Amino acid sequence: MTLIPSNIISRKRIALDMDEVIADVTPKFLDYYEKDTGTPIEKEMFWGRKVYEMPGGEHIRDYLHEPGFFADLPVMENSQEVVRWLHGHYDIFVVSAAMEFRNSLPDKRDWMQKHFPFIHWKNIVFCGDKSIIQADYMIDDHVKNLIAFKGKGLLYTATHNITEDRFARVDNWLEVRTFFEKELSAKR
Amino acid sequence: MTLIPSNIISRKRIALDMDEVIADVTPKFLDYYEKDTGTPIEKEMFWGRKVYEMPGGEHIRDYLHEPGFFADLPVMENSQEVVRWLHGHYDIFVVSAAMEFRNSLPDKRDWMQKHFPFIHWKNIVFCGDKSIIQADYMIDDHVKNLIAFKGKGLLYTATHNITEDRFARVDNWLEVRTFFEKELSAKR
Repeated sequence: MTLIPSNIISRKRIALDMDEVIADVTPKFLDYYEKDTGTPIEKEMFWGRKVYEMPGGEHIRDYLHEPGFFADLPVMENSQEVVRWLHGHYDIFVVSAAMEFRNSLPDKRDWMQKHFPFIHWKNIVFCGDKSIIQADYMIDDHVKNLIAFKGKGLLYTATHNITEDRFARVDNWLEVRTFFEKELSAKR
Repeated sequence: MTLIPSNIISRKRIALDMDEVIADVTPKFLDYYEKDTGTPIEKEMFWGRKVYEMPGGEHIRDYLHEPGFFADLPVMENSQEVVRWLHGHYDIFVVSAAMEFRNSLPDKRDWMQKHFPFIHWKNIVFCGDKSIIQADYMIDDHVKNLIAFKGKGLLYTATHNITEDRFARVDNWLEVRTFFEKELSAKR
């Protein structure tokens, strides 16, 4: 076996969040809100907040503890194609702060297998505090995760973060692709 | 809010493995081996190997996929007391390469809650490839994890690693305590 110094072959690493980045939680939140309060709600009505910070929606966060909640979330638009493309250029680690919700863990593992089968289980991380994560880029909807991160942080737009301006922002997966196309061409 | 530079208040961080470090898998492996082959076996008989590298034991690794396998493992002797002591001096993250085994995830989360309730869920990590982990120390029984680690690695003795000599070795939790007592007194 010939040992090659890792800095020659190593690719840069992206830590990629799940909920509200590749997995779309919002439609389920809207359904629960309408079902439980009798009032239909739209995403724009809780700009700057989470749905469970809305009047009458406080209990909705409890659903996150239920088995199955995370099992059938829709995939964020264009994320599969763009993550597959990124996977050709970077080491992708999917990093979810899932540890609070013990029942979410197998559901999230299965969801990844179903929707992102090209991401190896070795590259999936479930944690709590993301400051333990070592990577070059982090794509996340939570500013607290990006603040603790030493690499380049990209804030993925979600209702609760629209007033933030401390990080480069991406509104959708096509913008993620554009961002990394620029990173790659700058490297050449 | 006053911002304090993190290097003033931050404590050093230890990444602590679960299986064969704080959770004792070996007794269960020995039981399965005897039950399935009809031959009792002792730990010393597979020095340098894992039990599923023993003749007739190849299938035993499959049990790791079963729900409940990790739920009732005994706690490694003295680990609770020493981890509690370490918790007073360091940030402890329990990091388990559990992601291959989807059913292990809730079991391991519950096991931590039961046996190490003073470790917050924010400080638990389930992953695959541990090179994503950023910490100052790592205590692990797998050399491959320590090789990829940039901090100080401590090899916790297990049957499969007894021929290794590339890392500082600890045979038990009292030796872990002694190691960190020295680290702490050197710092003063």
